[in-house]
Amino acid sequence: MPYQLSSCICISSAISVPTIASHSSYKSAERAQRSVDHVTKIPRSVNMESLQSGYLFPEIFKRETEYAMRNPHTRLLRLGIGDTTEPIPNIIASAMAEQALALSTVQGYRGYGLEQGNRDLRMAIAETFYQDMQVQENEIFVSDGAQCDISRVQMLLGPSLSVAVQDPTFPAYLDSNVILGRAGKFQVETEKYKKIVYMKCGPENNFFPDLSTTPRVDVIFFCSPNNPTGSAASRQQLKQLVEFAKANGSMIIYDSAYSAYISDESPRSIYEIPGAREVAIEISSFSKFAGFTGVRLGWTVVPEELRYANGYSVLKDYDRIVCTSFNGASNIVQAGGLACLSPEGFKALKSTINHYMENAKILVDTFESLGLKVYGGRNAPYIWVHFPGLSSWDVFNEFLERAAIVIIPGTGFGPGGKEYVRVSAFGHRECMLEASRRIRKLL
Amino acid sequence: MPYQLSSCICISSAISVPTIASHSSYKSAERAQRSVDHVTKIPRSVNMESLQSGYLFPEIFKRETEYAMRNPHTRLLRLGIGDTTEPIPNIIASAMAEQALALSTVQGYRGYGLEQGNRDLRMAIAETFYQDMQVQENEIFVSDGAQCDISRVQMLLGPSLSVAVQDPTFPAYLDSNVILGRAGKFQVETEKYKKIVYMKCGPENNFFPDLSTTPRVDVIFFCSPNNPTGSAASRQQLKQLVEFAKANGSMIIYDSAYSAYISDESPRSIYEIPGAREVAIEISSFSKFAGFTGVRLGWTVVPEELRYANGYSVLKDYDRIVCTSFNGASNIVQAGGLACLSPEGFKALKSTINHYMENAKILVDTFESLGLKVYGGRNAPYIWVHFPGLSSWDVFNEFLERAAIVIIPGTGFGPGGKEYVRVSAFGHRECMLEASRRIRKLL
Repeated sequence: MPYQLSSCICISSAISVPTIASHSSYKSAERAQRSVDHVTKIPRSVNMESLQSGYLFPEIFKRETEYAMRNPHTRLLRLGIGDTTEPIPNIIASAMAEQALALSTVQGYRGYGLEQGNRDLRMAIAETFYQDMQVQENEIFVSDGAQCDISRVQMLLGPSLSVAVQDPTFPAYLDSNVILGRAGKFQVETEKYKKIVYMKCGPENNFFPDLSTTPRVDVIFFCSPNNPTGSAASRQQLKQLVEFAKANGSMIIYDSAYSAYISDESPRSIYEIPGAREVAIEISSFSKFAGFTGVRLGWTVVPEELRYANGYSVLKDYDRIVCTSFNGASNIVQAGGLACLSPEGFKALKSTINHYMENAKILVDTFESLGLKVYGGRNAPYIWVHFPGLSSWDVFNEFLERAAIVIIPGTGFGPGGKEYVRVSAFGHRECMLEASRRIRKLL
Repeated sequence: MPYQLSSCICISSAISVPTIASHSSYKSAERAQRSVDHVTKIPRSVNMESLQSGYLFPEIFKRETEYAMRNPHTRLLRLGIGDTTEPIPNIIASAMAEQALALSTVQGYRGYGLEQGNRDLRMAIAETFYQDMQVQENEIFVSDGAQCDISRVQMLLGPSLSVAVQDPTFPAYLDSNVILGRAGKFQVETEKYKKIVYMKCGPENNFFPDLSTTPRVDVIFFCSPNNPTGSAASRQQLKQLVEFAKANGSMIIYDSAYSAYISDESPRSIYEIPGAREVAIEISSFSKFAGFTGVRLGWTVVPEELRYANGYSVLKDYDRIVCTSFNGASNIVQAGGLACLSPEGFKALKSTINHYMENAKILVDTFESLGLKVYGGRNAPYIWVHFPGLSSWDVFNEFLERAAIVIIPGTGFGPGGKEYVRVSAFGHRECMLEASRRIRKLL
């Protein structure tokens, strides 16, 4: 990720562009081809071999970096990787600064925290996000972010389960299943992994899978508001999902990382749906809610009623995973999380979220005014734009080469992303307006 | 972990003791027995079922918490969990505070960083710890700590490999193998998992396994300076280990988290040994080096020369794991890490390490003066004390109930820990002296 540069700022020749050499995987890939004197006898994990390419977002980063190197005087506008750009409110940053300084005092020094997270933060999460949903603080596990929690939940569940993902889907859901050995072979003709059920989500079905034709699986991965389509599932849809899971004895892994962007009555948590506590784990994050993409904080809820077939508590096992594979989120960062959930912090964050949603509106209007079908952008900071008949990577290349705008090709999210691109609304307002001008010119 | 309390501070009745209720796994275990209306059809992972008990350190925490509740007026001395107690030097804390505050400014705001870690930090790690060992910054992956890296390395390698651990061993090495499905059945008679090779390390073999009788395995987990025995492997021993790995086409996962505590010429990194780059991954941490137990920062080195049997680069796959299962260590924390490696920061940390090692000497002297055989305490902040003929949990109970001192029973680290206890030298000086008095009285 380009940490020196915000998602949508101007790169002029005066600012050093991260060289390809600084992109570890690219450089190491080149070096990896050098012959060596010794190899181990360790077989490469067949699961790693099954991965079709690099993880999507570093691949995008590689291409935008290459472009920037070739065009050092061009102002590149990043509407690709969903990286937040607006400063963290001072009350939150100050809380973290204070906690850092406290660590240099005898009275304020803290070593290990509870692996599950500081109790006050867990309580604040329960109160802020799960009012009236009976989520207890002991069901909440604070983490260093949803990306990490996804893999911990995967480790918890083991390799032998059947899974379904939305199509298109946030890539970590697919890739983590591959790494755990659940995916089977990749089939080039369908661009799908053989053992994974892909639940197509598109305008034809209101971005909600047709569950009547969806086979039973053990675990259903569901993200709402959705990355990449920006669609927020309705209460009715989520009721169906919970009933489907319940009838099938399935588990839902529900990602609510973008719930703060919901502007209508769509549910913000799966636990708003009766019965969800018996079927769903919810993963969420401070990244997009609080601009903590680089600060790193998230949480996972595992309700006590969630049980394996033998009645054993999933919460108990997840706690064991957390205690073994993790050692808690940073105490400094957790102090920031608590400040995010204070009335003043929360209010300030709302203001930033509104900024991004106003960006989204600019993008929606821009694309719509050009006669394109646009989805998302109303309950999420992502716009999902349809380019009928075009390859999404071709559209990506056009935008990059001819307008110096980075977007994400839809097929990066699965075959369901064909003919679509994802455009991110994270950025400074001025860049968003410049992007709008260039898009109008391009199309 | 008792984040409100340092490892070795006085608990008087004026300080609130964490209640059992705040220990999530304990509370949820109780609730988990309640019957529920609905269970899923998802089988509990057989790997999770194979785990014999809770992770060691939360179990110790549970017992010390119970004791504290029963004895609210007793001053409990914590020489158990290896939790650092001394404040972080101001130069380091200030660097983190500054980074936190910078995030509240337009110019200073940063979103996602490189998943592999900030380049300046990786370079500083290479220069500080791997001078003349040809470790490049692109071979270094900054993380939120060794505990997390262990599991990421495990995910990388997949479930089908044969492994060896030292005996006794840091529990995460054993447990992560169980969770990944490599361990086979637990055999009650031997207290060992069937498919894991246990390399006994004790005074009889200078705490280094007899490799001539060690079967070949794919992956060897080796920690030096050792947790729990405190023994640092010699250059000669590590040469043997590297040769053994090379001859067998094995990989070493080398944990150097305590290398800063070495006081003699023992190697501080496996890469001091010729040939190690072709066989070893090294995992290390700022936790014990810099008091970052709650701040969370570590790193893993994967050399480019390390290859699977088919020649594929392990580094490349690890990069893929890091990009998929992780999103980088906190930018605030990484700023602290960089300050740790500045001349002033490094010097200040040395002073803290010396404090802990002086504590260790007090403990060594105390136990030795009582006629006990004591190991460790010279190259690591752990003392490994032999109580011939006694059960280590009985010794644990005696220390707790009769002297209000928490230690760790040796069998918590595997059957090789029988008759031993681990005593941690982390703590304020005053508590260490009080502990010494009580130990003399007890024994």
